[in-house]
Amino acid sequence: MDKLKSLIRVEENFNKFPSVGKKSAERMAYAILDMSKEDVEELYNSIKDMKEKVHSCPICGFLSESEVCPICGDPSRDTNTLVVVSYPRDVLVFENAETYNGLYHVLGGVISISKGKTIDDLNVDSLVKRLKEHKFNEVILATNPTIEGETTALYIAKLISPFVDKITRLAYGLQMGGNLDYTDSLTLSKAIEGRREIK
Amino acid sequence: MDKLKSLIRVEENFNKFPSVGKKSAERMAYAILDMSKEDVEELYNSIKDMKEKVHSCPICGFLSESEVCPICGDPSRDTNTLVVVSYPRDVLVFENAETYNGLYHVLGGVISISKGKTIDDLNVDSLVKRLKEHKFNEVILATNPTIEGETTALYIAKLISPFVDKITRLAYGLQMGGNLDYTDSLTLSKAIEGRREIK
Repeated sequence: MDKLKSLIRVEENFNKFPSVGKKSAERMAYAILDMSKEDVEELYNSIKDMKEKVHSCPICGFLSESEVCPICGDPSRDTNTLVVVSYPRDVLVFENAETYNGLYHVLGGVISISKGKTIDDLNVDSLVKRLKEHKFNEVILATNPTIEGETTALYIAKLISPFVDKITRLAYGLQMGGNLDYTDSLTLSKAIEGRREIK
Repeated sequence: MDKLKSLIRVEENFNKFPSVGKKSAERMAYAILDMSKEDVEELYNSIKDMKEKVHSCPICGFLSESEVCPICGDPSRDTNTLVVVSYPRDVLVFENAETYNGLYHVLGGVISISKGKTIDDLNVDSLVKRLKEHKFNEVILATNPTIEGETTALYIAKLISPFVDKITRLAYGLQMGGNLDYTDSLTLSKAIEGRREIK
């Protein structure tokens, strides 16, 4: 027996999402069949509302529902430090850690040869403009610890070097609460390289 | 920093789906922010189309896009055997196994005290009507091997007993390809109970 065409179409659309496999997409499509018309409308309206309201902050590139994002618009933030990340979600990782109170700049991706993404595709003009207009004490490059993230960090460092005195990169090392047994050798060698004196 | 309200609303809606946790719901909401307007429209249109086209087959209660479902409408099916399942997806499990060529009846759930579902909430009137109108040689009760599934099977068996001579229940036992080590004791005792002579 062939599966229903309209069901397959919904499954395929859900399957396009990151972290949604074929089985989950199937379950979601069936769940929608069981949902009331009102619940389906609510799902769609919430998506529509979000797409209409959320835009990139013109200053930092993070997500915002108001003119500037809640971080750029917060006067209690330390305006001496700038963390540069690839994606909006990375900002939330910093915010959830609750140890950083400076500002952010979101690049909107990484330089990627395989995906044909160059530095021109990233949100860098606004970064340079920002550094020219305001003197930051330090820029922390917090792109992902991957080859693409590293490449991007190096490019950005070169590009912004004339406008800021101190540029840093997040430390590599063991994961807190992790197990030495499970640490891959690249991370371990980085942890040895970055070891700190305690006596 | 507070998260954006319209984003949270979308996350909460995705979080309601079975098998979609908080983290996945968040990822999906962010993925939608990155999607083009056309892709979001396609997602919604596919859902709308499915909700409009798919209905319960008036004969068996399985899903259908045409008047009767592809199984009830297939003249090559063996009309002597009827498998009774709880959910439309269970039909697909049988179909994928490709060992059964009879007909189905979908109850639309199980008797559940905790959810306030009684036998009257299930698709049983049409089952009784069907058994009265057509003589099946055997009805196989294939509700889930859970307390609720068992209870439902017992109720259904009692209800349909006057209209069919042979009523069976799927066998319990070891999972094919499984490991005896990992078999729970209830399943093992059922497997012993249902053991078959091979010599």
